[in-house]
Amino acid sequence: MLACGMRDDALTAALLEGNVAALARAVSIVENGRAGFEELLATLHPRLGRARRIGLTGPPGAGKSTMTERLVATFRIAGHRVAVVAVDPTSPFTGGALLGDRIRMEAVALDPGVYIRSMATRGSLGGLATATQEVCDVLDAAGFDRIIVETVGVGQSELDVARMADSTVLILVPESGDGIQTLKSGVIEAADLLVVNKADRPGAEKLRRELEMSLDLRAGRMSRHGSAHHGALRSGPAPQAATASGDTPWRPPVLLTTAATGEGIDTMVAAIEQHWTWLAESGTLERRRRSRLAQRTRDVVERAMHRWVWQESHADEMILARLDDVSAGKTSPYDVAAEVVASLKEGARV
Amino acid sequence: MLACGMRDDALTAALLEGNVAALARAVSIVENGRAGFEELLATLHPRLGRARRIGLTGPPGAGKSTMTERLVATFRIAGHRVAVVAVDPTSPFTGGALLGDRIRMEAVALDPGVYIRSMATRGSLGGLATATQEVCDVLDAAGFDRIIVETVGVGQSELDVARMADSTVLILVPESGDGIQTLKSGVIEAADLLVVNKADRPGAEKLRRELEMSLDLRAGRMSRHGSAHHGALRSGPAPQAATASGDTPWRPPVLLTTAATGEGIDTMVAAIEQHWTWLAESGTLERRRRSRLAQRTRDVVERAMHRWVWQESHADEMILARLDDVSAGKTSPYDVAAEVVASLKEGARV
Repeated sequence: MLACGMRDDALTAALLEGNVAALARAVSIVENGRAGFEELLATLHPRLGRARRIGLTGPPGAGKSTMTERLVATFRIAGHRVAVVAVDPTSPFTGGALLGDRIRMEAVALDPGVYIRSMATRGSLGGLATATQEVCDVLDAAGFDRIIVETVGVGQSELDVARMADSTVLILVPESGDGIQTLKSGVIEAADLLVVNKADRPGAEKLRRELEMSLDLRAGRMSRHGSAHHGALRSGPAPQAATASGDTPWRPPVLLTTAATGEGIDTMVAAIEQHWTWLAESGTLERRRRSRLAQRTRDVVERAMHRWVWQESHADEMILARLDDVSAGKTSPYDVAAEVVASLKEGARV
Repeated sequence: MLACGMRDDALTAALLEGNVAALARAVSIVENGRAGFEELLATLHPRLGRARRIGLTGPPGAGKSTMTERLVATFRIAGHRVAVVAVDPTSPFTGGALLGDRIRMEAVALDPGVYIRSMATRGSLGGLATATQEVCDVLDAAGFDRIIVETVGVGQSELDVARMADSTVLILVPESGDGIQTLKSGVIEAADLLVVNKADRPGAEKLRRELEMSLDLRAGRMSRHGSAHHGALRSGPAPQAATASGDTPWRPPVLLTTAATGEGIDTMVAAIEQHWTWLAESGTLERRRRSRLAQRTRDVVERAMHRWVWQESHADEMILARLDDVSAGKTSPYDVAAEVVASLKEGARV
C-alpha cells in the first residue's frame, strides 16, 4: 500500500473522516481489485450499515438517469449526502446513449455533497456485481446517507441490483408494453416500488392498472401459500421463519411520475422512506442484510478459488500441455479437466 | 443413465446414426447437466468438427430471427441438415418479443432436416455459454452440417457467440445508429461478416459506408501493428506466430440485405462460404478450434471446482455458522472467506 502514498490505517482514518481524496483512492483500489483491497474492505466492515441503498432498475429508455437526478436533488434538499453508482454491464450496443446520460449527470456532480461513480469494468475479477457492492460499502463507510445504484436494464443486471439494494425501484414506461408480460418475467418479484414514468404519455394509467392487477393476483397466490417474502434474495440461505406476529407484508405501491418535470417525485421519495420504515420494523432489513453478508462471503470465496486455480496453480499450463492430444481427439476436454481438478485437489496442501 | 431407458453407449450409437429420439434425449441431458452428461460429451468429442458453426448476433430488432429462417431455407436447398440454437440470456424485459419470434420459426421446424432448440436456462451450472457450446457439440456429432447460433443481443452474449462460432455475422439495421459508435464497442472486432439488414430503409447506404470506413481505419491500424488476428478469441492462449507466408488477412465484407423479402441472402450465404474457405486455407480454423478446446477445458475445470466448493464441501455450512459474528461486526466476510478457502485447500486431499 506504500505505493499509494498512504498506509492502510491512514487511508481508512481519512476515509472515515470524509476526506475526499481518500474516498477517491479507496473507491479506485476496490473497483480495480488492487493489492490490499480485501483487507481494506475487512477493516471497513464494522462501520457499515448507515447508508440506505436504493436500486433503480428498468428497461433502456425508462428515464432512470433523469429519475436519479431528481432523487439526488430531493435527498440533497433533505440534507442527505448522496452517492450514485451507475452500473453499466456494457451492452456493446448502448454505448452512445449511456455516454449522453453520464454527461447530463455532471450538472449534479458539481455539488460536493454528491458523489457519482460509473462501474463498467468488464470481466473484473469476481464479477461486476460484487465489485459494485464493494464500492457501495466504501461509500457507506465514508458516511453517505443515501446510495443510489442505477443499472442499464440488460440481462441479469436487474436482479443483481435487487440483490444489493435495501429498496429496489422498478421503473417502467407506458411504451415498454404489457404489464402482465413484465410480471411473468420475475422482475416485479424483486421490486419494492413500481413506478410508471413518463406518465404524461398515453397508456400510463392502463399500465398502472395492469400492474395493480398483477399485484392483486400475486397477493392472492401468496396468501394461499402463506409466504410474504416477495423481494427476498434469489440465492442465499432460506428466509427465516415466516411472518412474525403483527408483521404486515409489504405491497409495492404503483406510482405515476414524470421525471422530466419532477411530477410525482416527492410521492416516490415518501414511498421509499415508508418502505425503509417497513423494512426496519418488520425485521426484513435485518434479514436482507444477513442474507447479503452470507452471499458476499460466498462471492469472496468464489473469487479466491478462481484466483487460486487460474493465477496461482499450474492448471492452465496443464491444459495447454494436453491441447495437442485434445485437438487430435486422443483425449477430450472433459478428461483433461478431470486430471486438472484431481491435480488441484492433490496439490492444495503443498 | 438407466433411468433414461438407454445406456450411454446405446445412446451414443443411436445419436451417431441420426436417431431423432436419441438426439432429443442427448440434447436434454447436456442442456440440463444431468448425470453422465460430461461422460457423454467426452465420448462424442472425437466425432466433432464436421459442422460449420455460424453465429448471428446484433441488437434487438435487427431481424435476426427472420435472417435465421432465410439462412435455414437456403442451406436446406443446398441439401444441408441445419440446426438452430437460439440463445436467450433472458433479459427479463424482452420475453414477449422473443416468444413471437419462436412461434414464427415453427414453420421451418416442420422440416425433418431442421432442428431448433432454444437455450434459456438461467443460472445453469457453469453458465449458459458453455451449455450452448456443449449442445452444439451434440448437434455436430449427430451429423448436422450447419449450426446457426442466434442470440438476442444483450450484454455479454454477443461476444460469447463469437467465441463459439466459426463465422460470426453481426447484423445491424439503419436505425441502430452510428456505425462508428458500434465500432468503438468492440463487437465489430469479433465479426467476420457485417450485414446491414432492412436495407430498404433510409440510412442503409450511409451505415454501410461508415462501416467500410471503420474497417479501413482498422486495417490501417492493424498493418501498422503487424497483426491480422481480427475475430480472434478474447481469452485463451495467444494466437500462434503471426500471418504465415501468403496468408491474406480476412476483411469482413459489409453486405446489404432485406431478410423479410430475401433480398441479398444468396450473397450473404456465399460470403459465409468464402469465409469458411479462408478459415480453412489460412489455418485460422485450426487455430480457432484449438483455442476453443483450451477454453472449453478451462470452463469444465471451473464448473467442477464450483461443484466441489458449493455442493461437495462444507463451505456453505462454515459461512452460515459464522454469520452471526459477521452480522455483529466481530469478523468480516473477507476473514470468513479466507478461513473457508484455507479449509478447502486443507481438506482437499481427504
